[in-house]
Amino acid sequence: MNRFSEYYDRLRRYAEDTIKSFLPESKGFQKTLIEAMNYSMLSGGKRLRPILMYESWHLFGGTDERLIAPFIAAIEMIHTYSLVHDDLPAMDNDMYRRGRKTTHVIYGAGMATLAGDGLLNLAFETALKASGHGHDDRVIEALRVLAHKAGIYGMAGGQCVDIEIENTEDVTDEEIDFVNEHKTACMIESSLMVGGILAGADSGYISRLEEAGSCLGKAFQIRDDILNVTGTEKELGKSIGSDSDEGKRNYVSLHGLEDAQKKVTELTSHAVSVFDELYRFRGIEYAFLSELAERMTRRRK
Amino acid sequence: MNRFSEYYDRLRRYAEDTIKSFLPESKGFQKTLIEAMNYSMLSGGKRLRPILMYESWHLFGGTDERLIAPFIAAIEMIHTYSLVHDDLPAMDNDMYRRGRKTTHVIYGAGMATLAGDGLLNLAFETALKASGHGHDDRVIEALRVLAHKAGIYGMAGGQCVDIEIENTEDVTDEEIDFVNEHKTACMIESSLMVGGILAGADSGYISRLEEAGSCLGKAFQIRDDILNVTGTEKELGKSIGSDSDEGKRNYVSLHGLEDAQKKVTELTSHAVSVFDELYRFRGIEYAFLSELAERMTRRRK
Repeated sequence: MNRFSEYYDRLRRYAEDTIKSFLPESKGFQKTLIEAMNYSMLSGGKRLRPILMYESWHLFGGTDERLIAPFIAAIEMIHTYSLVHDDLPAMDNDMYRRGRKTTHVIYGAGMATLAGDGLLNLAFETALKASGHGHDDRVIEALRVLAHKAGIYGMAGGQCVDIEIENTEDVTDEEIDFVNEHKTACMIESSLMVGGILAGADSGYISRLEEAGSCLGKAFQIRDDILNVTGTEKELGKSIGSDSDEGKRNYVSLHGLEDAQKKVTELTSHAVSVFDELYRFRGIEYAFLSELAERMTRRRK
Repeated sequence: MNRFSEYYDRLRRYAEDTIKSFLPESKGFQKTLIEAMNYSMLSGGKRLRPILMYESWHLFGGTDERLIAPFIAAIEMIHTYSLVHDDLPAMDNDMYRRGRKTTHVIYGAGMATLAGDGLLNLAFETALKASGHGHDDRVIEALRVLAHKAGIYGMAGGQCVDIEIENTEDVTDEEIDFVNEHKTACMIESSLMVGGILAGADSGYISRLEEAGSCLGKAFQIRDDILNVTGTEKELGKSIGSDSDEGKRNYVSLHGLEDAQKKVTELTSHAVSVFDELYRFRGIEYAFLSELAERMTRRRK
């Protein structure tokens, strides 16, 4: 196994264990709700956001895991809630995700709506557990970024436009860029920024992390749109072409596959240059985030 | 106008102005989402939770409005998000609330789902604005209570059981009490507790506020169930009997109208005794919360 895989697997295991340690036990009268939340959380996702957050924290010399662990779980809860609600019949009406039935298929649309709500709320409940360890100023700033990047000026704002441009003929570049930046990149930015904030990085470095996250997130989304055309159902664990069937407009439908992959490479290259600079500044030899970013331009799932 | 009405109207106006001051401007690509959120927030509700929070804060000698104002807006955002999602076709499928079309009727179920998500997220974004004014320990504790009482061990947990007991024949007293305590009372408790916490009240008093809130909240819910049988559509601004049409089980369907009103009186009387004690302890002559609680046992809407 090469250095990247070893490093990646170690972070992924840490993310997985950390997420599990903050999931509620499914018992009590509200057992079904907790089951539905845990079902969606334990779906074998890439855990990309927790991995980015942990590595950004590590990059800036974070040491006290009582600060980072709750936020690792929280960012994945927010990401997961957005998927559960996105998959609802009233939204994308997707029946499969990551090769498993979606939450509403198993638990019904009402309970899935509630499970998403429960996860978003639990994210803040969980992140607040980082307080009381001597760095509440960092915890408050991290909460502020987490909430802002998930809300109407972040992910939720992007989802609104994503819904509205469905079946619209004349979608502009600006609208697609707004969706990619807000719906996808904001949570990637937030992951990197929160890691840096909790480690005590200066605001100038937090801005650099935001910049790298923006490029990485947009590249990730465009690569996703490419795979939705060129990938196989087995690789992706979901129905291929489901997005375009629903009349979705995205970078690929506007510019074609070739230009889209060019854009992925260009955005990634900017993210990598920022990461390289930060690793150099911190005197860390192995730039894991740079390699992760580069590998993501070629990912098949 | 009597003392109660004057006092009540002053608090209601303060709540209304405060809530409005924290609502986002509907502009940008995500304009529709913000419009849908503001539509649901500006529906002329009773603003009961903000009023309770403000008075509890005042009762414990709170002075810096920069602490309480963001939480006043936040609690109403959480309450409103729960109504928007409750009304969805996948949940109660209600078309009218407070005499106006529900959010999904105007904006569609997808956008209404997103509007609820946006409000829950905005609640935390907004409450965090109370930080940075020299009492971040209180702000963190208030956030903790706000999140806990809205989540799976609070309101969302109650909603889960509320969904599950629909159309169930053998509903127990324990289940109805769980729903009333969690779905309704938890947010009333949270309103009173957050007011006290932000004013700097000792934890013993916060427990008393929680106890009073539990009784008041359960009384409020049972009175609501009574009005759903005895009220008129004009008074309530919604279709009468819609709950029972959907097969809802509640305290009234289990015990009948007379026993239900007896329970309302008994619960209220306990809440009033706690409020009276707290006002005496603080040396405040007019026990507004006690009168509010007593009036709520007779409310028609």
